[in-house]
Amino acid sequence: MTHCPMCTKWDDEPSHRIAELEHCYVTLNADQFFPGYCFVFTKNHVTELFLLDKTSRCAIIEEVNRVAAAVYAVFTPTKMNYELLGNMVPHMHWHIVPRFTTDPLWPRPIWSEPHTPLTLSPAEISARTGLIRTKLQP
Amino acid sequence: MTHCPMCTKWDDEPSHRIAELEHCYVTLNADQFFPGYCFVFTKNHVTELFLLDKTSRCAIIEEVNRVAAAVYAVFTPTKMNYELLGNMVPHMHWHIVPRFTTDPLWPRPIWSEPHTPLTLSPAEISARTGLIRTKLQP
Repeated sequence: MTHCPMCTKWDDEPSHRIAELEHCYVTLNADQFFPGYCFVFTKNHVTELFLLDKTSRCAIIEEVNRVAAAVYAVFTPTKMNYELLGNMVPHMHWHIVPRFTTDPLWPRPIWSEPHTPLTLSPAEISARTGLIRTKLQP
Repeated sequence: MTHCPMCTKWDDEPSHRIAELEHCYVTLNADQFFPGYCFVFTKNHVTELFLLDKTSRCAIIEEVNRVAAAVYAVFTPTKMNYELLGNMVPHMHWHIVPRFTTDPLWPRPIWSEPHTPLTLSPAEISARTGLIRTKLQP
């Protein structure tokens, strides 16, 4: 891949920014079909967990965990889903997705059926990113 | 849920056992449509990452990581997928799935299309679990 979209995602999506942490950036997924769906992606272009040293791996997981806890605190879902895939974009990015028994695909994975993306208004994006940011404990 | 299938999975599937680690059990998924697909599941009935203390969380991730590295070493896939879902069975279990550009669903997530499960013979299961076990570094 000559251009990695994850390397420039923080710069490319200023309106969806939630937080800059030590190792990762946190953004709201532009598609909010699953309300609260966030990305946690590393600042560095790394791919597999096992290519990191243990200290970095633990620190990144702590950041993933902080975001999951914050999203959970805001949305109180039935279950959080955490996915590290990277088949299309190998730069490490975690899909952090609150799941509800009322969501149309429950209890199947979010990829089980295609859906029409749900885009929020700028005011709604701002409110949602702000809520999650507020719950991100240090 | 009155009965948790993950609490008894290690006992229920002796032929698919790969390893008992300190915090987790490792088994081969009975469906090998995606060759090398393993589960890493906690011995204790825990659910969300953020309900663990930091030490346990890091230790569990190190075990997930060891399994991913071992599976990668055996199968040399293009990308590893790591998924912690738990919508149906909340007891923490990680789907560790090697992905290849030659697999029918590449580069989409494994859940994008239904498939007929691929069950191996006892000899093939034994060979595959043995290979992964050999690569599990301490």
